[in-house]
Amino acid sequence: MPTITVDGPKIQDIELKRQLVKKLTEVAVEVYRIEHIVVLIRENAPENVGVNGQLIADRPKK
Amino acid sequence: MPTITVDGPKIQDIELKRQLVKKLTEVAVEVYRIEHIVVLIRENAPENVGVNGQLIADRPKK
Amino acid sequence: MPTITVDGPKIQDIELKRQLVKKLTEVAVEVYRIEHIVVLIRENAPENVGVNGQLIADRPKK
Amino acid sequence: MPTITVDGPKIQDIELKRQLVKKLTEVAVEVYRIEHIVVLIRENAPENVGVNGQLIADRPKK
Amino acid sequence: MPTITVDGPKIQDIELKRQLVKKLTEVAVEVYRIEHIVVLIRENAPENVGVNGQLIADRPKK
Amino acid sequence: MPTITVDGPKIQDIELKRQLVKKLTEVAVEVYRIEHIVVLIRENAPENVGVNGQLIADRPKK
Repeated sequence: MPTITVDGPKIQDIELKRQLVKKLTEVAVEVYRIEHIVVLIRENAPENVGVNGQLIADRPKK
Repeated sequence: MPTITVDGPKIQDIELKRQLVKKLTEVAVEVYRIEHIVVLIRENAPENVGVNGQLIADRPKK
Repeated sequence: MPTITVDGPKIQDIELKRQLVKKLTEVAVEVYRIEHIVVLIRENAPENVGVNGQLIADRPKK
Repeated sequence: MPTITVDGPKIQDIELKRQLVKKLTEVAVEVYRIEHIVVLIRENAPENVGVNGQLIADRPKK
Repeated sequence: MPTITVDGPKIQDIELKRQLVKKLTEVAVEVYRIEHIVVLIRENAPENVGVNGQLIADRPKK
Repeated sequence: MPTITVDGPKIQDIELKRQLVKKLTEVAVEVYRIEHIVVLIRENAPENVGVNGQLIADRPKK
């Protein structure tokens, strides 16, 4: 503890995951003054997330 | 916010996911009077869910 | 299972919670064809929720 | 309810999952004196978990 | 990690919480062979939990 | 989405919550390149958190 859980879309590049974990941890250490931080990255498929009643998978491609 | 997370078994048909997201969102908008609703569907394998001490995967087939 | 978790602001009126639970459950039964549904309502204080980097508690009153 | 969610690494052997569910349920029944217990096992890839700012996937192999 | 989250009703007696944490941890250490286990106890008010469409708060007293 | 949930001890000072939300959001925007970020801060009482089998509430005061 503290534990930070991030629910977002898939992150293709492991280097981005590395940065996400590193930087979220730095913020948490700074605020909580506790060293032991766990970060869980949850990757959600676009057909498993709805925003305002619509699946992300059904959004028009830009 | 609000965010609705649904933990259930796998949903094979994307049309059912579409309906799930649409209808859960309608209920939430009605109760909270807030437009921005996120729904997360989590699909759990039968070997990762236990009910009353038994894995769903070990239940006798009907 | 399935379990539906709703993270939103405080709901003052228990009658609204009653409706929220009843209607979310109806939607889930319809989609999953499973009777046993659990709903958890989580009420979050405005100083514990941030949207786009700002606490809800800090939003200008309308 | 109660619902127990376990976030950990992948469990290869279904027999271990069986034991995990059975024993966690026994503990919960004993403490809560409620029979209906749901256990959700979440398996997290080593590149999706950070401890103290470092991905589990990046830890030196022992 | 692993992290065990328990969503249940209020536990009045801290001694029961002590036992819950101790025993859930023992089970997790045995299965995962990892020492560092975090347990989060979430206590839910009866008006914030619905089972099969009905609030726990509305159940007839036994 | 993305949604960041932080489970930690109580944060007394709202200014620290402000910073936590602001900085976690900045990190998430940078990594996901998505503007809409929700942060949920969950404050856990020391008698509801166990680390390595022991309640935080039972730790010897330093």
